[in-house]
Amino acid sequence: MTILIVNDDGVHSAGLHATYHAVRPLDEAVICAPHEQKTGTGRGFSLHKPIRVKQVPFDDTTAYATSGTPVDSLLYAIHGLDLRPRLVVSGINLGENISTEITSSGTVGVAIEAASLGIPAIAVSMELKNDMGKLEEGHGVDFSAAVLVTRRIASRVLASGFPPGVDLLNVNIPHGVRDDTPVEYTFLERNLYDSHIEERIDPMGRPYYWNVGIVSQKVRHGSDVHCVLHKGHVSITPISIDMTAPVECASYGYHR
Amino acid sequence: MTILIVNDDGVHSAGLHATYHAVRPLDEAVICAPHEQKTGTGRGFSLHKPIRVKQVPFDDTTAYATSGTPVDSLLYAIHGLDLRPRLVVSGINLGENISTEITSSGTVGVAIEAASLGIPAIAVSMELKNDMGKLEEGHGVDFSAAVLVTRRIASRVLASGFPPGVDLLNVNIPHGVRDDTPVEYTFLERNLYDSHIEERIDPMGRPYYWNVGIVSQKVRHGSDVHCVLHKGHVSITPISIDMTAPVECASYGYHR
Repeated sequence: MTILIVNDDGVHSAGLHATYHAVRPLDEAVICAPHEQKTGTGRGFSLHKPIRVKQVPFDDTTAYATSGTPVDSLLYAIHGLDLRPRLVVSGINLGENISTEITSSGTVGVAIEAASLGIPAIAVSMELKNDMGKLEEGHGVDFSAAVLVTRRIASRVLASGFPPGVDLLNVNIPHGVRDDTPVEYTFLERNLYDSHIEERIDPMGRPYYWNVGIVSQKVRHGSDVHCVLHKGHVSITPISIDMTAPVECASYGYHR
Repeated sequence: MTILIVNDDGVHSAGLHATYHAVRPLDEAVICAPHEQKTGTGRGFSLHKPIRVKQVPFDDTTAYATSGTPVDSLLYAIHGLDLRPRLVVSGINLGENISTEITSSGTVGVAIEAASLGIPAIAVSMELKNDMGKLEEGHGVDFSAAVLVTRRIASRVLASGFPPGVDLLNVNIPHGVRDDTPVEYTFLERNLYDSHIEERIDPMGRPYYWNVGIVSQKVRHGSDVHCVLHKGHVSITPISIDMTAPVECASYGYHR
């Protein structure tokens, strides 16, 4: 029984090392993560191509680095290495993962995969005030308080498990977090981004397109977005993987 | 106001043409889909590379084919083409998308993206008795009854919208569907797959790994899995994009 550490920013991310520092005092830890940056892959996995795996130096141990997505990395660790982790910790992601947008996050996607395998999972993400930390794989970001917060939450989950109906915790840590930053239980805000598409022209005169996410201003009190971005508190959102809407549909008659 | 048609099997899939046949009598339809097979990409999108778009002949019209994921295709259609569709129909996917596994499905992932933009969405998938239809882009699969089922459900959603709390419908059509196949409202089964990793050795003697999903035998009455795979009925699962677990967590104290 070990703790499995995964992420979506790749094996070289300082956030992955922070998670290792957070959970190492709690139990044996195995690290298995994508070799490259895989942000935005959600719960995606490789169906049409196989994955490659290599071992790379990682602090005082070695990590498994895969050519696949976060979910591929998790599945390799569990089935390929025959691990039965008692907890999966995903992160610490470089950048927050909040609102119903979380299903596009690789950090949360792999925690959903773990949960669907019956393994308690925690996705941990940290707000960055600018994206430079992300570009530089988080080197230079101060994770010291985030490490303590992550360790405290992981320790509690190891001791007590989850309440019935909870499959994973989505944890978000604000920029400037301190050891005594308040922690709140939140709900997922409905939407975070008002996206648009930016067209550019390449040197050959042909168009190409970038997705650009713009943070929406519609925020409710008690939501994860309000907690992290407006109050600067740590947000814990209990997540269920069952997306069945809690409604009685038969009377609506969506068939003949 | 149009209907936007997307999928994850790519613009050449016969299932995408089936959706076009299904909704064409209902309203103007725009098709925007990945140029290549993008099964298993969930709600993933392109953050680190731009997308390319081209127009390709498609039945009596043209379709937009993108280098990105299903979500990229949707975002291009909405923001790049400035579409405001009144309905998004994703599919018809070659192969069912059932259980809490749906978050790894590109077919469902893009419907979740549409729903998060406030657009009613229907994800439609069809069971194939073997994977040959998928390999051959569905050519040779009889979609005639599936077209009628899809048209009926889309028509009803256009007329009546969704019940409160429902963001999208996940529709699954059994192999061998007929026009009078019963339609049931279902819940998401908890898990569908007991996966494993298969190791193979390449011609240079190095290992590579395939994910292999094996259908679990744990099935409850009333679930989408039971409905489609066991009874051979059409399944409609109402989906909420809000995965916040319906529990009161504060008393569990996952912090100090």
